[in-house]
Amino acid sequence: MKQVVYSTVKLKPELRRMIEDYAEVYEVGEGGAPDLSRVTVLLCGPVTGQDLDAMKNLRFIQCVYAGVDSLPWSHIREDVTVASNVGSNADAVAEHAFALLLAAAKRITFFDQRVRGGNFEVVGESKMLHGRRICILGLGAIGTRVAEIAKAFKMHVVGYGRSLRSGAVVDEFYPPERIDEALKGCDYAVIALPLTKHTRGLITYERLCLMKRDGILVNVGRAPIVVKEDLVRFLKENPSFIFANDVWWNIRSPSEDSDVYSLPNTLSTPWVAGAASSRETYEEMLRQAVENVVRYLKGEKPLNIVRHEDYR
Amino acid sequence: MKQVVYSTVKLKPELRRMIEDYAEVYEVGEGGAPDLSRVTVLLCGPVTGQDLDAMKNLRFIQCVYAGVDSLPWSHIREDVTVASNVGSNADAVAEHAFALLLAAAKRITFFDQRVRGGNFEVVGESKMLHGRRICILGLGAIGTRVAEIAKAFKMHVVGYGRSLRSGAVVDEFYPPERIDEALKGCDYAVIALPLTKHTRGLITYERLCLMKRDGILVNVGRAPIVVKEDLVRFLKENPSFIFANDVWWNIRSPSEDSDVYSLPNTLSTPWVAGAASSRETYEEMLRQAVENVVRYLKGEKPLNIVRHEDYR
Repeated sequence: MKQVVYSTVKLKPELRRMIEDYAEVYEVGEGGAPDLSRVTVLLCGPVTGQDLDAMKNLRFIQCVYAGVDSLPWSHIREDVTVASNVGSNADAVAEHAFALLLAAAKRITFFDQRVRGGNFEVVGESKMLHGRRICILGLGAIGTRVAEIAKAFKMHVVGYGRSLRSGAVVDEFYPPERIDEALKGCDYAVIALPLTKHTRGLITYERLCLMKRDGILVNVGRAPIVVKEDLVRFLKENPSFIFANDVWWNIRSPSEDSDVYSLPNTLSTPWVAGAASSRETYEEMLRQAVENVVRYLKGEKPLNIVRHEDYR
Repeated sequence: MKQVVYSTVKLKPELRRMIEDYAEVYEVGEGGAPDLSRVTVLLCGPVTGQDLDAMKNLRFIQCVYAGVDSLPWSHIREDVTVASNVGSNADAVAEHAFALLLAAAKRITFFDQRVRGGNFEVVGESKMLHGRRICILGLGAIGTRVAEIAKAFKMHVVGYGRSLRSGAVVDEFYPPERIDEALKGCDYAVIALPLTKHTRGLITYERLCLMKRDGILVNVGRAPIVVKEDLVRFLKENPSFIFANDVWWNIRSPSEDSDVYSLPNTLSTPWVAGAASSRETYEEMLRQAVENVVRYLKGEKPLNIVRHEDYR
């Protein structure tokens, strides 16, 4: 059967040509929409449930983003293979996680603003990374990079996830059911988990209370892994605890998250760790997504196939 | 001869007792100043040239700070052994260097301020550390730690200094006379040098021009290593270049440095990377200084002896 690839994101000519060696290619925004019933492979980006319903012959979905949680899952048939794009932005996101952690620990925004006003007074205390206990929630490509860098900072690394990649270096490892033990007594935690039915609402008030009261929680995964109301209560009760965050519950109407970002003990970036960080990172993500599509078209097994049941 | 130790900084009782096993101890602020002519060992902190002149029997100076540049060198006899306290705050300062570098690369202060105002618009580009060329100026305890962490971020590490410590990992090494080659084409640079007669004014306009125009220069060493007027000119001509700085030319009247900190392409902290970062870091510095004094009192060779000629 002739393969028909539809991309809902724009592709550079050299990436498009990589696919054209194996399939007909349609890109979003080209004159005349493709006949969706002919599409066998979807490379996306944004897609509506309605469009998915029309793709009667769809066999494979390659997501451009690391997380596949935003796909309209109820419109995806069980027999369609779905691949995420994890790993493609792991370095960028791990770097952003440390930018947030260190800026919070060393109070960079606080001091920069004061110095700009001519105020050089030294007040309060900065926090060390060296020797501190950090819990890394999620040991995929991003979490594994965070662990490697944390070891270079001489931290005690507590890994939490389904499994440990070969070569990953942690000092302790806890599987999913042992979340409370993983968080207990940690100075810092970094959330690098995908959003699935298992991780949604994982971080509750009670679990936040397991961490040190002057700790730092970094979220570069997905916002709904943290119960927002619980977080707000915890941050109000513990003014020395800092929430350093890149991902949001209501990114399309962010003012609804002002209960978080208006708190003094937060540090915020507007979801810019990965694809939105730079053209270079986004293009690397596209390249890896296209390579995986080509893998599928050549009859090889694509990387990063996700389990439908985690998202339904 | 009975050893008499005078400390111009306050000591915790357990640290004082470590010295009292070998010497008479006087601390600043105790009732009645010591007879300075009896002092054989000075543990300082701040000290005036006048007090040094009165210490006719002085044999050994242990500085509490990593840098000994602020000692009144013209009042120190050639036969007095002077030890710095390098290494005691290396982790704290290396962490601060990365806090500054990453905050600049990922635009943390820019985005945090916008998000607090409800503005989630993604504009511009962040910079990667991965794959970038970083020059580390100074390969002492701090620079060596910066190099180790830079390798964990998968950077290309260019080391510059008198010598490479055993075990230090750099991709390229340049000795002092090859400063221009070390800086050429670098995306980032971190200054972790002591201030000596050799390093004062090392970073000129011409040398800044050797770096990438959208680079980042971090200074956690000493301010006068950079020629301020040259830096200001370079930053005005290159608005994409960022100067991320913890050390100042005029820390006692910092408004005189407003020509730097008022520029938009700067990121500033008020000399808080090391001793001032936290009580914990300062106490670790004191402990290592006292250990070195004890080493001297026991007749062992103290660590970190500096060369007088570098400071005269």
